[in-house]
Amino acid sequence: MRVSPYFEAFTRRDWQTIEEGTVRLAVIGLGAFARNRALPAIRDGDFCETTVLVSGSPEKASDLAAEFGVERVVDYEGFHAGEAAGKYDAVYVATPPAYHPEYAERAAELDKHVLCEKPLAADLASAEHMVETCTDAGVVLMTAYRLRTEPAIRRIREMVREGVIGDPVQIHGGFSTRLLDHAGSDSWRLDPDVAGGGALIDLGIYPLNTTRFLLDADPIAVSAEAASSGPPFDRVEEHVAFRLTFPGGTTASCTASFGAHPDSRLRVIGTEGQLLVRSPFGGDVSQELVAERGEVHVSYAGPAVDEVLEEFDYFAHCVLADADCEADGEDGLADQRVIEAAYEAAETGDRISP
Amino acid sequence: MRVSPYFEAFTRRDWQTIEEGTVRLAVIGLGAFARNRALPAIRDGDFCETTVLVSGSPEKASDLAAEFGVERVVDYEGFHAGEAAGKYDAVYVATPPAYHPEYAERAAELDKHVLCEKPLAADLASAEHMVETCTDAGVVLMTAYRLRTEPAIRRIREMVREGVIGDPVQIHGGFSTRLLDHAGSDSWRLDPDVAGGGALIDLGIYPLNTTRFLLDADPIAVSAEAASSGPPFDRVEEHVAFRLTFPGGTTASCTASFGAHPDSRLRVIGTEGQLLVRSPFGGDVSQELVAERGEVHVSYAGPAVDEVLEEFDYFAHCVLADADCEADGEDGLADQRVIEAAYEAAETGDRISP
Repeated sequence: MRVSPYFEAFTRRDWQTIEEGTVRLAVIGLGAFARNRALPAIRDGDFCETTVLVSGSPEKASDLAAEFGVERVVDYEGFHAGEAAGKYDAVYVATPPAYHPEYAERAAELDKHVLCEKPLAADLASAEHMVETCTDAGVVLMTAYRLRTEPAIRRIREMVREGVIGDPVQIHGGFSTRLLDHAGSDSWRLDPDVAGGGALIDLGIYPLNTTRFLLDADPIAVSAEAASSGPPFDRVEEHVAFRLTFPGGTTASCTASFGAHPDSRLRVIGTEGQLLVRSPFGGDVSQELVAERGEVHVSYAGPAVDEVLEEFDYFAHCVLADADCEADGEDGLADQRVIEAAYEAAETGDRISP
Repeated sequence: MRVSPYFEAFTRRDWQTIEEGTVRLAVIGLGAFARNRALPAIRDGDFCETTVLVSGSPEKASDLAAEFGVERVVDYEGFHAGEAAGKYDAVYVATPPAYHPEYAERAAELDKHVLCEKPLAADLASAEHMVETCTDAGVVLMTAYRLRTEPAIRRIREMVREGVIGDPVQIHGGFSTRLLDHAGSDSWRLDPDVAGGGALIDLGIYPLNTTRFLLDADPIAVSAEAASSGPPFDRVEEHVAFRLTFPGGTTASCTASFGAHPDSRLRVIGTEGQLLVRSPFGGDVSQELVAERGEVHVSYAGPAVDEVLEEFDYFAHCVLADADCEADGEDGLADQRVIEAAYEAAETGDRISP
């Protein structure tokens, strides 16, 4: 079995079947990620345009509207009242997690498709309600797992599926940041009622979702250990280590931290080879991928691909081509079930079945 | 704080205080590791010489004695009877684990120092008895953790101790081999009565001991998950994932496997930086070390250092200079306590305190 073919046309969009079409987006919530990553990605991509901004800060929204050539600005009340609903086909919900459901559900009622940031909600029950509402309305609901459209992750999934590394045996994944370097101690990420938790739900969800994606399976058990060094990490966990066990015994040993050197890594060890990705979850940095099978060692270090741009185009493509959306609402719920089990595991010390 | 000074004189022996002396060794058990790694390392090192071979296969032993210029060959009965006891000052016990205690304890009775392969014994009680016997006899007992004399491991310990990466937060460590590529299904490593277990005790002990060494601490909790794909791994675990929790909340997420692509890795993530070692446990391969602190990134990829040679010289140096031996019997026991707890954790699903 050859390894090198997976490295040809590395950044190809294996999911794309149509060439034209536009989904008009209302972007709800204009935090740093929406401003710095989402709006430029939508502008630069093929299948989306931002036609409406929804924000509680009209002045900020007006400046952004001018910068990105967005037609309308609507406040939260206006959005709920259905203002400018004729101007957009779908919404991108980028508020803090606790507020996702109210916007996603209102959008579904307005017959709009929904791209919702992860986690879908601050708690599982609210996320389930959101998914049900969107399903009943017959709209597309995608959970915004940008890693899913990252070429390195898609290529290693192909390699795993096609047996390049034999059977997957053990995974190591980690994602760490220093939250306080770029957020104050009043950050919503430190409020469990708004965020749903700490490092686990905000960062640990990346190796969790990636591992489920690569193995095409859900964990049957989870154990976890959470820790904090003290305030401001007194209401949510600063650090977490969790281990997932999949059917057949494959394990994923994952870590996440709000208070450690910024980095992310992923390593998949199989019976016949291994895959290593540097910075799989890091955002807009170049990824380095190494694939080994026996004595063969192939590495890739191409230019960075804007996974956020890929993500928006993937979502719009699902809408336009009526294609199955892999990261759908059920996918988001599956992660939230594991996260809930992991919090219980950290609390009790037991191995928990999600 | 500067990172680069740790990379100067990278392979220096920070433990060496004397320049001369020789410890005469009886090598007990002539398996592949003793033949291919230990005997050449002793020959090439500064402070040891092999003067006696102890083996149940006189013909194999005679050939080796000729090859390495060893004076005497003694069989197991002869060793127990004290034959050639005047010819050696210390023993290196390289039999399978279940047989370590009888040779180590007899050596102690003969007033010989002991370098014993890890694990000290196939079970904790036998290991405790061995340590007690050696302590009572007043001889040096060193557990043969070759990683302890590996320059990359010693340098990263210095960096951890001196705060180069801030406070250690999360460790990832793994060690995998494909046992059946170089051993038959009759290997003693597949017999729990002889080996004490499978991948955990044979390979997992490396990231376990290294982590304890780096943090200078013992874990307060361990969780574990063991799996096997079937015969010949039906009596010992083929794969294991275990997580150690240290005082203060630092975690070590470790894996080991007898049935996966051969590799080893170590990654220590701290509040201010991180350390990565490629092939920390792999034996005679070149190690690559990366140290990061903030934006500073320093990497080292020097020639391979024979850690087995370093290990024998370290042991002999402890004997000759009457120096404290870091990897003493208590150190070996500490690992066996954690391993016993990990087997219980894998069985029950609970978080266990060693």
